[in-house]
Amino acid sequence: MSTAPLRFSGTARRTGDSPISYYVQKALETPGLISLAAGLVDESHFPVADIREAMNDILGEAKSAKAALQYGSTSGLPALREQCLKRVCHADGTTPEALNLTVNNVLLTTGSQQMLYLLGEILFDPGDIVLCEGPSYFVYHGVLQSQGVKVITVPMDAGGMDLNALEATLTHLQSTGQIERVKLIYTVDYFQNPTGLSLAAERRPKLVDIARRFSTGHRILVLADSAYRELRYDGPDLPGLKSFDPSNEFVIYTTTFSKPCAPGLKTGYSILPHELVAPVANLKGSHDFGSTNLVQHILTRLIASGAYDRHIVSLREVYRTKRDAMLTALSNEFGDWPEVTWTKPGGGMYVWMTFPKHFRTGKGGALIERALKNGVLYIPGELGYRPGDDGIVPTNEIRLSFGVSEPDTIREGVRRLRAACRGLEA
Amino acid sequence: MSTAPLRFSGTARRTGDSPISYYVQKALETPGLISLAAGLVDESHFPVADIREAMNDILGEAKSAKAALQYGSTSGLPALREQCLKRVCHADGTTPEALNLTVNNVLLTTGSQQMLYLLGEILFDPGDIVLCEGPSYFVYHGVLQSQGVKVITVPMDAGGMDLNALEATLTHLQSTGQIERVKLIYTVDYFQNPTGLSLAAERRPKLVDIARRFSTGHRILVLADSAYRELRYDGPDLPGLKSFDPSNEFVIYTTTFSKPCAPGLKTGYSILPHELVAPVANLKGSHDFGSTNLVQHILTRLIASGAYDRHIVSLREVYRTKRDAMLTALSNEFGDWPEVTWTKPGGGMYVWMTFPKHFRTGKGGALIERALKNGVLYIPGELGYRPGDDGIVPTNEIRLSFGVSEPDTIREGVRRLRAACRGLEA
Repeated sequence: MSTAPLRFSGTARRTGDSPISYYVQKALETPGLISLAAGLVDESHFPVADIREAMNDILGEAKSAKAALQYGSTSGLPALREQCLKRVCHADGTTPEALNLTVNNVLLTTGSQQMLYLLGEILFDPGDIVLCEGPSYFVYHGVLQSQGVKVITVPMDAGGMDLNALEATLTHLQSTGQIERVKLIYTVDYFQNPTGLSLAAERRPKLVDIARRFSTGHRILVLADSAYRELRYDGPDLPGLKSFDPSNEFVIYTTTFSKPCAPGLKTGYSILPHELVAPVANLKGSHDFGSTNLVQHILTRLIASGAYDRHIVSLREVYRTKRDAMLTALSNEFGDWPEVTWTKPGGGMYVWMTFPKHFRTGKGGALIERALKNGVLYIPGELGYRPGDDGIVPTNEIRLSFGVSEPDTIREGVRRLRAACRGLEA
Repeated sequence: MSTAPLRFSGTARRTGDSPISYYVQKALETPGLISLAAGLVDESHFPVADIREAMNDILGEAKSAKAALQYGSTSGLPALREQCLKRVCHADGTTPEALNLTVNNVLLTTGSQQMLYLLGEILFDPGDIVLCEGPSYFVYHGVLQSQGVKVITVPMDAGGMDLNALEATLTHLQSTGQIERVKLIYTVDYFQNPTGLSLAAERRPKLVDIARRFSTGHRILVLADSAYRELRYDGPDLPGLKSFDPSNEFVIYTTTFSKPCAPGLKTGYSILPHELVAPVANLKGSHDFGSTNLVQHILTRLIASGAYDRHIVSLREVYRTKRDAMLTALSNEFGDWPEVTWTKPGGGMYVWMTFPKHFRTGKGGALIERALKNGVLYIPGELGYRPGDDGIVPTNEIRLSFGVSEPDTIREGVRRLRAACRGLEA
């Protein structure tokens, strides 16, 4: 007798494999491959000695050892939450008081990814709508798919999300009776994954204002995923979207220590509007009643000692060199092909390349197979889009990452990519 | 103009505050209080030196430091998953092969709590039914409430879940057309939270067999929450429920390193039937794409060096002494009151006391206020139940924990509890 089948939930039926697992598998199967695909961080420059010292300080004293090895709290270590709040307000040239914020508005999570998930769970019912940049962070698309949410894409230009297009989309949704399903506008507002573009300074107050103006029947929130903010290589910092929300009602600010410090510590933090704090914390109570406490104690020490800030300064140098290596290599290799363009990011880890329209970069196209044969891997740009009602997404773009490889390897990877394109230009 | 209201999801509307937050608050407001309530672990006996040594080994060598501080994988560190699988199979006197298991069936999570949540999300739609012991782990009830699940309680006796009652309940659900909503039977099968009782040896194969027999239209799974298995103070170990599921189709085994090692490392592990592996891992990918990697490396070292097993041996001594202190104090203080009974657990952290029927232990009753005034706190037993269709739950029971306090404090706490009862006996 065969066993009766499992009966899965609606959530399980909507949840898919990671969209990049095919490419991860390809990378594993290809020895000598240069991966310009992975969004991993440079592991030669982890602050190992600082983390080791912090850990020895914590475990070398009975009281702090007990505190770090006991259960933490659902919202996270208060000392670290206080530091996070101060950092963000300081970066924005303001104070917690001016933004109507206290440590109670700050939550620590298992990377910022967990906050993306929790927010969706407390906000979305299947059929709700989220507005995302086109292209956007493909892992978040997976969350939204799991949660049964419809993604509507707002185009971008060099200044990030096109706010005229955003207003036009919201007006259309209003006139067609769909606005009541719109819960959230999602933006990766610094050195975006996947394009490397940032939301321009003058658009920042406007974006929050648009959310406010279209919040007539119910509130439309802005989720500012600022994961790459601290990885800035050129130019001045831009004000966080939270700083344009003095009543603390519209903007969720989320970021992570994974990119600027170490992913193995797996700690993200968020600043939430008052009314979201209890619902998110209660749900996190059901998920895990608190992320890993020990690593929160480590991060608190790193920040308090100044080691964290020193690390950021040196890490920026490392990544700036890699970014420059990639941009120079792209100029050298692709400068003879004027139809191909790419972004020049001032931070983060990603460069976004646009090929001529007919040029297919994704699975089934010629380029990905040739690139793999030539020993280089990229992420096809189509993964960054959710198809609209017409089912069409751009298929002529790619994401390159300069995070993992050393400059020489980056240069060689770009050479291999150019070689893979030869014969496909026409 | 006032701001438009937030519109929360169905999940958010179903998710409540922790049921014990009232008592936690009371405890914080009462100086000198002895808490026999909290399920925290004894922090004087964390393996601090072992963890510190493991950490220095990991961070003292470039290759292992990089591996521990980089992103891990969604399912967790393969070396630790391998160790977990071997431990469970060894405890059951069997092998992974005999149980149709490989390392691919093992998942690491942010405490075992996260697995309780993930499983619910992939299995339950609102209106589904889970069968739980009465009483059961109240935090899990919170998860089930959040997920819109109906809990049906199966009574317990000294041998744990009453399997005749379980069969009768399933037969009733079958005859009333509700069996198709039954997805899971949940049992805390070793030194249960909250009663301290274990599922008797002879009931173990029978429980799995019942799940199998009632899986006609769809599969009914058994979730064995074995969090306290390693905290055993008397008698032989009992075989895990997984060992009675050689086709690996019916039983999910979940446990944690929080209780036997340190909650600050926040790592649980589970062994899953084949068909659950991909759905759970995919959903975990959306939640966080992997729990904290660094602590997984620490645990791997602790187990490999033997430090973990040595720690368990000494920890059992510590808790055995506390358990004995509580049982002796209960005999001394309550021996003159034959209507009051309590469990004598062979492991874990909890003793379950039953007062005469009229005796109300919960909020609004006389005992809790008097106990707080006398400087002792317990968990009212009613939190362990979800009301059935008749809305009635037992209100004359309490949970005492001997996990945190030292033996003298436990004795004093029990004395205070007895004093709080004086005048209420009639």
